[in-house]
Amino acid sequence: MSYPAVARAAMEGLDGSLIRTVFAEGAGLEDVIPLWFGEPDVVTPGFIREAAKQGLDAGRTFYNSNFGIDELRAAIAQYQSGLGRSVRFDGVCVTASGVNAIMLACQALLDPGDRVVLPEPFWPNLAGISRVLGAEVATVPLRLRGAAWSPAWSVDLDELLAALTPGTRMVMLNAPANPTGWMLSRAEQEVLLAHGRRLGIWILADDVYERVVFDQPAAPAFLDIAHADDRLVSINSFSKSWAMTGWRLGWINAPSTLMPALGKISEFNTSCTPPFVQLAGIAALQQGEPFIAATMARYRAMRDLACARLGSIPGVSVPVPGGAMYSFFAVEGCTDSLALARSLLHGAHVGLAPGRAFGPAGEGCLRLCFAVAEDRLQAACDRIADHLAHTGGR
Amino acid sequence: MSYPAVARAAMEGLDGSLIRTVFAEGAGLEDVIPLWFGEPDVVTPGFIREAAKQGLDAGRTFYNSNFGIDELRAAIAQYQSGLGRSVRFDGVCVTASGVNAIMLACQALLDPGDRVVLPEPFWPNLAGISRVLGAEVATVPLRLRGAAWSPAWSVDLDELLAALTPGTRMVMLNAPANPTGWMLSRAEQEVLLAHGRRLGIWILADDVYERVVFDQPAAPAFLDIAHADDRLVSINSFSKSWAMTGWRLGWINAPSTLMPALGKISEFNTSCTPPFVQLAGIAALQQGEPFIAATMARYRAMRDLACARLGSIPGVSVPVPGGAMYSFFAVEGCTDSLALARSLLHGAHVGLAPGRAFGPAGEGCLRLCFAVAEDRLQAACDRIADHLAHTGGR
Repeated sequence: MSYPAVARAAMEGLDGSLIRTVFAEGAGLEDVIPLWFGEPDVVTPGFIREAAKQGLDAGRTFYNSNFGIDELRAAIAQYQSGLGRSVRFDGVCVTASGVNAIMLACQALLDPGDRVVLPEPFWPNLAGISRVLGAEVATVPLRLRGAAWSPAWSVDLDELLAALTPGTRMVMLNAPANPTGWMLSRAEQEVLLAHGRRLGIWILADDVYERVVFDQPAAPAFLDIAHADDRLVSINSFSKSWAMTGWRLGWINAPSTLMPALGKISEFNTSCTPPFVQLAGIAALQQGEPFIAATMARYRAMRDLACARLGSIPGVSVPVPGGAMYSFFAVEGCTDSLALARSLLHGAHVGLAPGRAFGPAGEGCLRLCFAVAEDRLQAACDRIADHLAHTGGR
Repeated sequence: MSYPAVARAAMEGLDGSLIRTVFAEGAGLEDVIPLWFGEPDVVTPGFIREAAKQGLDAGRTFYNSNFGIDELRAAIAQYQSGLGRSVRFDGVCVTASGVNAIMLACQALLDPGDRVVLPEPFWPNLAGISRVLGAEVATVPLRLRGAAWSPAWSVDLDELLAALTPGTRMVMLNAPANPTGWMLSRAEQEVLLAHGRRLGIWILADDVYERVVFDQPAAPAFLDIAHADDRLVSINSFSKSWAMTGWRLGWINAPSTLMPALGKISEFNTSCTPPFVQLAGIAALQQGEPFIAATMARYRAMRDLACARLGSIPGVSVPVPGGAMYSFFAVEGCTDSLALARSLLHGAHVGLAPGRAFGPAGEGCLRLCFAVAEDRLQAACDRIADHLAHTGGR
């Protein structure tokens, strides 16, 4: 008898990333404009990198608390207070990225078989993390609605509430959303919070794009309105707001009663994050507002450019996102977004993410990350327009 | 009806670290000699820190592959080849620490209810990770055997094999072991590998102390003798060999057939590790041998000192470890190692880890990390001897 060295069967049912499928195909191609990943195209600001270098020079290379160094936890609480949120120092758990924060929270909260509800299209890792831990994922579709000249992604709140049945363990709400830029209004948050309280459903608020918004300093957050003992975990990250994708630094805001479990879970996952990386995080929080303002001015211009250019292509429906850094647009007649993304890659040398990567409700769409320099974005839009004119989006 | 914001019930059954319990009690005390954690007492060598700083200057701050940057994967394969192991570049997965490597491997391999076997005393996270994922942990006790003047921790191989019943999913073998310094001989590894092959049992070899050995360049490893398609995952870390505990960098060697699952799991956990941290890892691997040699000369002297000093205390039984950086010694008459560790902390201002932190088989023992400067170690041994002379170890 022979035993092949393969993973548990449950792994087979977990999708690999379709974005990475397209990315892998582009490996050998020259002159590709890569807009497939959600990553700012600039190096982390110098003052943040300098803070890490100073930490290295100072010998900050040792283990530290499962919850992060006190200086960073305090800086996070102070930063969030500056956004008008009442955040407790001892309710902050530093994590090794936003995705790691979600993994830790889910390990603390989800039992196998638990029901998790997720608006769709969704960031694939939200479903992946739930499934790898054995939870059952139910989705509620967002819909592209509104007049042809101003479509918008929106959720039917009654439909979402109906999906949050008694016994549901968690709803994951990523708003501003990747990939759609969909946002939750304060009124919708109030209703969802009340519903969660009534039924004991945890809200996992993935707030990593809260500062990547175009018409306000920060997106409305559940943290603004929740009580300290509500079943709410807020996920955050340094990646998007401060161009720190590669640093793998994030945090969780959680009720104090959840912290002992998060401490154990942190210990079992990465135990802590590098002290010199955490010092860089402090610099970002305390000196980063001018960078965020400049970045958002740039993103706003790129968003407007992308929406105008893509919107002028016949058969393309382009909602204008209120947050995040993506245009998630529908192509008339497209029934296989993976094939279309491949066709655009090979035929037009533009790297986009296929909508289906974000769940079946994303089929027929493509995601373009507009966090790039203007000339690159213009060139990409030229290529997409040319390609769709010739192929008709199939 | 009200819903308290607490973790899933399974979290309650997971022990917090008893080492951290003692550590927390010492927070307010002055003049404590802290030997409770497994951490070298020196800052990471300058050439390693410089490599990270150069990466920061070069703008290496972006996302990278789920498996790590190619340069580091290649450097790991080359380093391991230098130890006489045939390691494939594409069987290396870079991770955010050794503990993270274990978590990733277990997420890929363990279903809820799976049986995991573990020699005891064990590093608590091995059991914790298994349990948090719903696996059932069975233990096989190591025993302190041999003449009174040269006791040694050893496993009864037949007893271990008998515990590896048909249907067992995994055996976790940390050798050189934390806390005992116990090692596996090549002959024992051959028997265990053959047994695992026969029954399809995965071997998770926690090799993080493989270079922290006193009588050879590296401990014998399953990787030396396994086939490429064996059910073997080897866990490694930069923490101990290169004094990089705070950096959170490690790796997995796995069969190529397991890599797609590890890629998905990596994506869901931290997605990647910082490129500039990985560049530091390359410097460690390529230029770190003199540091390892000097460190091991120092540790050998400290081990010999600790064993001689502790062994001269009446009623204390001190095995001489072949690897790792701990003295795990038995105190005659001690039936509550947590109480004894507390008593030593408050009465003698020495911070040790209670043996029970490593499972019931560690009761009656204490763990002392000897990776410290000689004057500190001498002072700690003075204090321990005085305290035990006055209290009799209770």
